[in-house]
Amino acid sequence: MTRYKLTIAYDGTKFHGFQRQNDLRTVQGVLEKALTKMTKGQHVDVVGSGRTDAGVHAFGQVIHFDYPGQMPAQNMLKAINSLMPLDVLVKDSAIVDENFHARFGVKRKTYQYRVDCGYYTDPFKRFYTGHYPYKISVDKIQTALKDLEGEHDFTSFAASGGVIENKVRTIYSATCVYNKNNDELVFEFTGNGFLYNMVRILVATLLEIGNGRRDVHDFLRLFEVKDRQEARGTAPASGLYLKEVFYD
Amino acid sequence: MTRYKLTIAYDGTKFHGFQRQNDLRTVQGVLEKALTKMTKGQHVDVVGSGRTDAGVHAFGQVIHFDYPGQMPAQNMLKAINSLMPLDVLVKDSAIVDENFHARFGVKRKTYQYRVDCGYYTDPFKRFYTGHYPYKISVDKIQTALKDLEGEHDFTSFAASGGVIENKVRTIYSATCVYNKNNDELVFEFTGNGFLYNMVRILVATLLEIGNGRRDVHDFLRLFEVKDRQEARGTAPASGLYLKEVFYD
Repeated sequence: MTRYKLTIAYDGTKFHGFQRQNDLRTVQGVLEKALTKMTKGQHVDVVGSGRTDAGVHAFGQVIHFDYPGQMPAQNMLKAINSLMPLDVLVKDSAIVDENFHARFGVKRKTYQYRVDCGYYTDPFKRFYTGHYPYKISVDKIQTALKDLEGEHDFTSFAASGGVIENKVRTIYSATCVYNKNNDELVFEFTGNGFLYNMVRILVATLLEIGNGRRDVHDFLRLFEVKDRQEARGTAPASGLYLKEVFYD
Repeated sequence: MTRYKLTIAYDGTKFHGFQRQNDLRTVQGVLEKALTKMTKGQHVDVVGSGRTDAGVHAFGQVIHFDYPGQMPAQNMLKAINSLMPLDVLVKDSAIVDENFHARFGVKRKTYQYRVDCGYYTDPFKRFYTGHYPYKISVDKIQTALKDLEGEHDFTSFAASGGVIENKVRTIYSATCVYNKNNDELVFEFTGNGFLYNMVRILVATLLEIGNGRRDVHDFLRLFEVKDRQEARGTAPASGLYLKEVFYD
């Protein structure tokens, strides 16, 4: 058995998320099907750095699996890519030792969130951005982002459905850039872990702050109240990208 | 009756082209269906500046139609947009006199063609670019583009299936820019008219020139021989955008 670590990109539009589900098209499912073909029938478990929801994209999701047999990492990359549909791309491949674990070994993750600020929904962006056609102050958002950095209890920002008890996470950096060219806000969040729907809830809250419907420092209150109802909205899956996963 | 001129954008991925076809989803079909709803059952003929093929996109297709009744141009824009699917957007609306004709009045058109030069097919670009993962000289392409400008017989660059006898067209400008950021070539062609598949055949020929598989001045020969077989390939529909249509 040889353990491979792959970095993959996918357009999440036509997937029912990352995680394998019976009869539904998922990223894990597509990868495991390809590996079963390569092993001529032997199932290979794929472990991802974490799940992504239906419609969520990835530039740099990381997975590992134990392959019965050995081939150079570049051959593995080519073999899997030749079996991938056009909406999944293996970008990098490495042979790692058995101590590497795509999920348990994660040190940091970076998510990106793209928001289209145009008045109408752009036909070319409908699957690739969230949409916020209202007045927005980037300054207010950037002030609020400073409150996010550091260690906080993110109970107010975790969708129900998560099974994790400890809701304390550390955000190392949280940024927002307005791109005049395409009228988009691009958020980036790097942290030691993210709760279920956390980035999408943070973005929805940030947009309300930018629009003036919340106090600029509302995050400080939301950390205190620990109440999901207080943060309200969830930005759509289409704007979210798992950008990079970091290990030791 | 009031004649309206609309400028529309669409993502062509899920359309069987612009032109109405029984039982198939087309841009004209979607527009006429919306208009039939607005008139409570009366059919309204939509006339486009020209057809676009299945998978071809538009930033600025122009259409006209005669509407039984009158409303301000901005109301027409809002009314139609409210009935459009997310892959069609009405960007502009104007009331024009009966001499305006979206097809016969065209003076110039600009097409854009995007080519992804990355080694692998980018999951996010598969519906929005052509793909050419080979060595390319932008200098050679730019030299060849100069031969395109002016009045020429484009018989070698017209797909069979066109019904037009006169294959002489004038290209006012033909440019190519390499965008290092996203590893894309962006071509733009402005001319007084384009034959069936002409832009896609030109791009396929230009890529072969850029790759060194054709002489830099092969266009001069191809204008002479007037033989579609000599130009060979057709770049995929996914990279083509009708960018702008000009009238007097």
